[in-house]
Amino acid sequence: MMFRMLLFITLSFIAVISVDFAQATCGYKSCPATVPGMLNVHLVPHTHDDVGWLKTVDQYYYGDRNDIQHAGVQYILDTVVSELLKDPAKRFIYVEIAFFERWWNEQTDKMKGLVKQLVNEGRLEFVNGGWCMNDEAATHYNAIIDQMTIGLRFLKETFGDCAKPRTAWQIDPFGHSREYASLVAQMGFDSLYFARLDYVDKATRIAKDRMEQVWHTSQSLGSTSDLFFGALFAHYGPPKGFCFDTSCNDPPIMDDPNMFDYNVDERVALFVKLAKEQNATYRTNHIMFTMGSDFQYSNAHMWYKNLDKLIKYVNAKQNETGVHALYSTPSCYTKNVNQVAKNWTTKSDDFFPYADHPHAFWTGYFVSRSALKGYVRETNTLLQICKQLEVWGSVLPGLKLQTNSDYLKKAEAVAQHHDAVSGTSKQHVADDYAERLYIGRTQCKSLIGSVLGNLMEKNSSVPAPTPEFCDYLNVSVCPITENSPEFIVTAYNPLARAVTTIVRIPVNFNYAVTGPNGKPVTSQLQDVSMGTKEVRRSHGNASKELIFPITVPPLGFSNYILKVLQKGEAKASILPKVYKPQSDEVVENQFLSLTFDGSTGLLKSMTDKRTKSSMAVSQSFHWYESSTGTFLSPQASGAYIFRPTQPTPKPLFDGTSVGMTVIKGPVVTEVRQQFQPWLSQVIRLYPNKEFAEFEWTVGPIPYKDEIGREIITRFDTDLKTNSTFYTDANGRQMLKRILNHRADWVYVNSDPTSGNYYPINSRAYIKDDTKQLTVLTDRSLGGSSLKDGSLEIMVQRRTQHDDSRGVGEPLNETGQFGDGIIVRGKHSVLFTSVATAAATHRTLGEEIFMAPLLSFSKWQPDWATKFNTMKSMVSASLPSNVHLLTLEEWTGDTVLIRVEHQFEIGEDPTLSQKVKIQLKSLFQPFGVTSLNEVTLSANEALSDEKRLQWNINDSPVPTPPAVKPDPVPSSTLTVSLTPMQIRTFVATIKRTN
Amino acid sequence: MMFRMLLFITLSFIAVISVDFAQATCGYKSCPATVPGMLNVHLVPHTHDDVGWLKTVDQYYYGDRNDIQHAGVQYILDTVVSELLKDPAKRFIYVEIAFFERWWNEQTDKMKGLVKQLVNEGRLEFVNGGWCMNDEAATHYNAIIDQMTIGLRFLKETFGDCAKPRTAWQIDPFGHSREYASLVAQMGFDSLYFARLDYVDKATRIAKDRMEQVWHTSQSLGSTSDLFFGALFAHYGPPKGFCFDTSCNDPPIMDDPNMFDYNVDERVALFVKLAKEQNATYRTNHIMFTMGSDFQYSNAHMWYKNLDKLIKYVNAKQNETGVHALYSTPSCYTKNVNQVAKNWTTKSDDFFPYADHPHAFWTGYFVSRSALKGYVRETNTLLQICKQLEVWGSVLPGLKLQTNSDYLKKAEAVAQHHDAVSGTSKQHVADDYAERLYIGRTQCKSLIGSVLGNLMEKNSSVPAPTPEFCDYLNVSVCPITENSPEFIVTAYNPLARAVTTIVRIPVNFNYAVTGPNGKPVTSQLQDVSMGTKEVRRSHGNASKELIFPITVPPLGFSNYILKVLQKGEAKASILPKVYKPQSDEVVENQFLSLTFDGSTGLLKSMTDKRTKSSMAVSQSFHWYESSTGTFLSPQASGAYIFRPTQPTPKPLFDGTSVGMTVIKGPVVTEVRQQFQPWLSQVIRLYPNKEFAEFEWTVGPIPYKDEIGREIITRFDTDLKTNSTFYTDANGRQMLKRILNHRADWVYVNSDPTSGNYYPINSRAYIKDDTKQLTVLTDRSLGGSSLKDGSLEIMVQRRTQHDDSRGVGEPLNETGQFGDGIIVRGKHSVLFTSVATAAATHRTLGEEIFMAPLLSFSKWQPDWATKFNTMKSMVSASLPSNVHLLTLEEWTGDTVLIRVEHQFEIGEDPTLSQKVKIQLKSLFQPFGVTSLNEVTLSANEALSDEKRLQWNINDSPVPTPPAVKPDPVPSSTLTVSLTPMQIRTFVATIKRTN
Repeated sequence: MMFRMLLFITLSFIAVISVDFAQATCGYKSCPATVPGMLNVHLVPHTHDDVGWLKTVDQYYYGDRNDIQHAGVQYILDTVVSELLKDPAKRFIYVEIAFFERWWNEQTDKMKGLVKQLVNEGRLEFVNGGWCMNDEAATHYNAIIDQMTIGLRFLKETFGDCAKPRTAWQIDPFGHSREYASLVAQMGFDSLYFARLDYVDKATRIAKDRMEQVWHTSQSLGSTSDLFFGALFAHYGPPKGFCFDTSCNDPPIMDDPNMFDYNVDERVALFVKLAKEQNATYRTNHIMFTMGSDFQYSNAHMWYKNLDKLIKYVNAKQNETGVHALYSTPSCYTKNVNQVAKNWTTKSDDFFPYADHPHAFWTGYFVSRSALKGYVRETNTLLQICKQLEVWGSVLPGLKLQTNSDYLKKAEAVAQHHDAVSGTSKQHVADDYAERLYIGRTQCKSLIGSVLGNLMEKNSSVPAPTPEFCDYLNVSVCPITENSPEFIVTAYNPLARAVTTIVRIPVNFNYAVTGPNGKPVTSQLQDVSMGTKEVRRSHGNASKELIFPITVPPLGFSNYILKVLQKGEAKASILPKVYKPQSDEVVENQFLSLTFDGSTGLLKSMTDKRTKSSMAVSQSFHWYESSTGTFLSPQASGAYIFRPTQPTPKPLFDGTSVGMTVIKGPVVTEVRQQFQPWLSQVIRLYPNKEFAEFEWTVGPIPYKDEIGREIITRFDTDLKTNSTFYTDANGRQMLKRILNHRADWVYVNSDPTSGNYYPINSRAYIKDDTKQLTVLTDRSLGGSSLKDGSLEIMVQRRTQHDDSRGVGEPLNETGQFGDGIIVRGKHSVLFTSVATAAATHRTLGEEIFMAPLLSFSKWQPDWATKFNTMKSMVSASLPSNVHLLTLEEWTGDTVLIRVEHQFEIGEDPTLSQKVKIQLKSLFQPFGVTSLNEVTLSANEALSDEKRLQWNINDSPVPTPPAVKPDPVPSSTLTVSLTPMQIRTFVATIKRTN
Repeated sequence: MMFRMLLFITLSFIAVISVDFAQATCGYKSCPATVPGMLNVHLVPHTHDDVGWLKTVDQYYYGDRNDIQHAGVQYILDTVVSELLKDPAKRFIYVEIAFFERWWNEQTDKMKGLVKQLVNEGRLEFVNGGWCMNDEAATHYNAIIDQMTIGLRFLKETFGDCAKPRTAWQIDPFGHSREYASLVAQMGFDSLYFARLDYVDKATRIAKDRMEQVWHTSQSLGSTSDLFFGALFAHYGPPKGFCFDTSCNDPPIMDDPNMFDYNVDERVALFVKLAKEQNATYRTNHIMFTMGSDFQYSNAHMWYKNLDKLIKYVNAKQNETGVHALYSTPSCYTKNVNQVAKNWTTKSDDFFPYADHPHAFWTGYFVSRSALKGYVRETNTLLQICKQLEVWGSVLPGLKLQTNSDYLKKAEAVAQHHDAVSGTSKQHVADDYAERLYIGRTQCKSLIGSVLGNLMEKNSSVPAPTPEFCDYLNVSVCPITENSPEFIVTAYNPLARAVTTIVRIPVNFNYAVTGPNGKPVTSQLQDVSMGTKEVRRSHGNASKELIFPITVPPLGFSNYILKVLQKGEAKASILPKVYKPQSDEVVENQFLSLTFDGSTGLLKSMTDKRTKSSMAVSQSFHWYESSTGTFLSPQASGAYIFRPTQPTPKPLFDGTSVGMTVIKGPVVTEVRQQFQPWLSQVIRLYPNKEFAEFEWTVGPIPYKDEIGREIITRFDTDLKTNSTFYTDANGRQMLKRILNHRADWVYVNSDPTSGNYYPINSRAYIKDDTKQLTVLTDRSLGGSSLKDGSLEIMVQRRTQHDDSRGVGEPLNETGQFGDGIIVRGKHSVLFTSVATAAATHRTLGEEIFMAPLLSFSKWQPDWATKFNTMKSMVSASLPSNVHLLTLEEWTGDTVLIRVEHQFEIGEDPTLSQKVKIQLKSLFQPFGVTSLNEVTLSANEALSDEKRLQWNINDSPVPTPPAVKPDPVPSSTLTVSLTPMQIRTFVATIKRTN
């Protein structure tokens, strides 16, 4: 009794003197002391707060709908801060800024001051610090960078440098991407920790002392992008028996010997045992216990009260046990591990796919909710355009923007969460994600319209109309064009290079098209297909589509004037030839020739007309039946997990004919195929375009028989591909995949199909020595090459069972009509030589990803006289290996610029070379006066970056040398870029007008 | 946004000035202001913390075994106090001192200081304030008073008068006792609130504006014991939709208009609607919302954060809605209601039995775990003796006690909880209650032994042995007596009157018994019955029982010396005559004559030999089959609820013979009956004793057929009882019961058996104009008179189904051998004239309740010379209508004395008169120098008591005048007592030696 009394006095004394911790000792300096000769157990209090999953992000914030899940982030932050304030020894880490910002906005100035003190003293530490903990399989690198940037920016602006996260914390995402790790390294993080990796991989790492390694994350960037990573031991929860959350049932530390159930000795003994067990699989005298889990700490006091006792009683026995427990954080753990003199082994491939058990490969979510995945990708494009136009808008005189890009930035960031774009949320939450995107798009479209209107204006006394937008052009719906006799199509091109593309406008008449230079443009008028009319259901009344090519200058716009033809007028759109071939049919342009089987209507072969090489290729659709469990395992296929009943899919082509219809015209030649009443495809060739476009329309997938169906498109070629195929990582690096093989461990082929599935974020290819078939997607999907010469991509899934990983719903999108949704997407297919493949798919990939945005205005007389019909905001195009990744408003007189070398090392003899661009006078509306180079996430000057260094003793893949960015001469502001390099600048600008 | 910011500033300002609330304004003065013209909604934050139920009291305290139930009281008190400290407007009430004391003991001095401030300012208010919230059906008034006293004493000593509870808060007990209400009134409480009352009663009260009334709680005490009571509206939880606890799913107040799900308007509207609905059934412009429930507020912040918002937004609309919400307490509510000028209607009967639905009468728990009920009752006796001997011990020179009564006081207090003695806890918790009692008994037995040894000593140089105890005398187990050739039996009598009783000592030889006066005592030696040998299982080896009468002086002891007879020695025990009658058998003493049927062996008639009146009476056992649900209702019979399959029980007598054996001797005549292999009875008559003793042994009740069995004993007489019978309330008042009738509302006879069951705490009787059959029990049970002349008492229950009221277990005591437990109990049966019945049963009841305690010592030569063989601690006996209810240590020079008039008004022409006793020199070891009269609970000087007064306008039962205690003249310290009056004194004592 006396002893306890003394302790309490000590604690209150510490609490009192905490007020004097005014001087910030943040960063690694704020780390608690460890004991050199002992096993130091870093207790890391943490909460994992999904930015939407079973509940929406706002429901999670407030703790609404606790009938679904007990989770309320407001209480977590309230009570954690309250506990931290009581005791300077306590630590907490927080991750998801989407939640933190909501909370921060509700705090008083006084509370904000207290929280700043906690951050300054390292007591509240942010890890990751992005808006969410993004998914790694279905996210595009552009969106990852953006979502990290807004979170980290919030932290920097709110708290200053003390809040800078040093640890990446991807504890829940379902597999880990090499590209993500590379981005994180470029953002200046010192370490990355995660929980989920293949169960065989984990067992192997435990056995071989490889739970922590150094990851070579980019061959192009070399050791600059090396990253220390650690796989967590006990998922991301506390060791078994030591969960003290409201949601847990473990026994508390009961230390009153006068009460029954006193358990201090037994709890301490178990803790020490578990610590030593875990330590046996790690290489230093430090281990981390992750003391928390999903939405824990809503009553932080429970956790801390028991942790206080645990630390007290464990350390009371430390001379006997050699175990020292302390409150800590992942970065303090990292620092301690770093200080132990060790040589670390390395890893070069990625952590996909992830299986937690045999028959439980988490490869379904690569494709789950492919409509949402498409919407997220398309919205990213809109966001990039919105940000560019916000910059233009800010320098246009007299323009006051009514909206900004903030809402869409946040909505798109939320959508990167690992239960959002991954497709693994409940349906109502998926709807919420989409609604947020929609609201953000609406605000951005208003902004874009305003700026475009302003840019079109020659004279402020003659105001230009504000262009409007049509979200459903892909299903021929656009109220403004459907019945207008005259209208303007305005296309904005967010690339720093001119692009030519083909547009399709829903109309009911025959129009003459005039280009921005006043010259007529050839157009093609064809009936809206019956399929599209079905898809658009009751929306729109266009009977035809007007198709014509547009050319848009770099970072600029072009206007096309469409006027209904009076009877007998010339310059009419050309009506294509429509027929149903009864024999083999060849469609071609100057690059490609596609042969279709006259009997089945299926693609039969492709010829690269430049090299005159051909390839037999059959393309069709198939489906996997979703498993509902077998005698081997009750595992069902669901939102996360892809588990087919059989390794080989069933054909969706019935063996007779897909009823091929050919529509041949000057602007496009289409081959229309109908595989099932609910599954059709149009294959298109455009003059001057190297790719063949495969537009598929899937859905509603049949469901009444209660059988889950997972639909793939498959190209079966005669290429000898040697069990090898390639998929991209987050739209950037290409990774080599070998069937039934893992680089680091012995693969157990329990699941020959799903165990070989990989994320396909933007593209995949197969090749032999000379020929390459590349498929670019318009969204994240997944696929594989399960037999030589074959490449399959799953396009949509509909399962009837939940897969028991928490979401608690079958992946059964019923849509607004209750029967299911229809998904339409495009695959751009290249058949090229291996040598030229990268040059083609890298630039085409960029054009698909950043396609021009169409908008529409009412016609006015003398349009071309009164208004600018074309304008570019740059003085010159960037080289084709350079991508202008970011151009956005930063502060009053600065903008954020990211420029990127979009080729990997060795991909192309020319384009993979170092390239230089000049930024000083690149932009027309403003000059750049100086560049402050910052880390990728823009929250630290690059010159201030000091990442921890790690000794490497064993590197099966040699470490390429570090790529140091060339200095930027202030005279020209010339920036050089090496392969895959992204350079990020806060540019001070000077308006030129 | 601006508005919220302002509010936060206001709140923090208030929080800052709270430091200045140094001056205590406690009691009603600390009540928050209400708004006269509005409906004031008193929001009462509270938690209901069962002192054991599904988990043990310690498990609940710590939050252990959360797998059973999420409940941890330490966190409740931690977080509530933390929240209260932040804001002086907040209120909380706390009830169970068993928990509060555990918590208090763990606090720092600093925290204790802060909590004192909260109490002084009325922010933390104690209600009830007993050690637990005691049961009202199965508790004895002596134990209720004790458990309230130790809780209230803790509060007074810890916090002073500001902590004095003014409201009794019995929100969960399953029915409400008139005697309990009477005790509460005598303790100075101003109001009593509860939640559970019969559903028809509640509906009637709602319809007739009677949710709150004034209760006439004692005809004997008159209006002194009137008590304002209120039935709560929505059980004891918050109004539907407004539960903000961790354990709830109601939507929080979401007030950020920038977030989705903003719900302030809708929540305020619902709150106002519910407030007005509730107010429609209450009589003032005040209502109480009980904002809490079982083990809620473990994360108090969640509750208060939302209540803060609710109050803010409700009051923001109060000019429109007329509804004002405020943090309040039940006593502040009471004060406000009291200040509204109203005349109140009254009630006189009690709230038993309680049904929450048709077929769901909570009358099973009157009997559930009758073994535990017996242990609790017996332990209460031991505790009273322990406390008396602690007083003697404190005044004995040179005696240093190693133990005290504290543990047993608390253990016995815990056992009064409404899930403890009620038998409605889980089995492991019932075991815990018993273990605590056992530990407390062990400490008390050590104390009693020490004091008795000391009292026996004539000379400190000749130390007396310390007597030891045998807990299992009732099954003939006593290691010290079983094989000793010589030993001493010491009996201590806690009554202030000499008693003569008959004891049974397990032995293996024939002994000579010598009384304290050195004279031989007639004894009877008989074989231990086969039944008892079975019951004691492997314990004990006594083959015989030695039976003899002992006489013990008031508040004193007697020694009896037992020595094995040498062969041929005289003074041997007498062996009784044992035979099995083949015809009707009459056994008798000077008072009673019992006739048994020679064919069946059953009791056939009784004769009161004094009046020569006879009564035909058959006594036998029957069983009800426990319902497992019917088509009318799925309700099963279980720990709480008694629901038989049929209204009429099945006989346990097989119709042939119970195999009557008669054992006739000089000390006792026994008739042994065997009804079933597991059910036997011994009926005994003792010379000079007015009662017949019916000792029943029940168990293990058969269970293998999975049928629940509920066992009754039933006396079927030829008395004309006119559907009327009488049961006691908590061992004190007698209440008249009428079959199928309720005083205040129209009884719906859905359950003819269980709906007519009432608690039998110590006795029940039936009578006609002249004759009365009274049965006294040795523990709390339940029973009824379902047909004229019949009296049934249920003795044990074993059900195979849970009754869905939370306990989650069938009431199936399997015991240490797995087959079930055996319960042995005694009913003392009186057959008297109505005129003399009270005189007999009141005094006999007192003797049964406070039976002498036996202890045993090893013999020493010259025992009677060396030691005191008899001693009384009083100079005179008290009159037979006065019970010395309490004699216990209080402070250094004070003791607590309660004296009680143990007759009701009009019960007996002589004994129901006012009586006087003199305390000044009553006690031998000390004189009383002064008496400070206090309230029944001893936490307030009686002269300081100021209870709220209530106007009564409608009193169907006239209010007797208030009974004012006569002043106590300091010269003689003579105390007068009127019927049922208990007077409590803190007596300053002066040692006489």
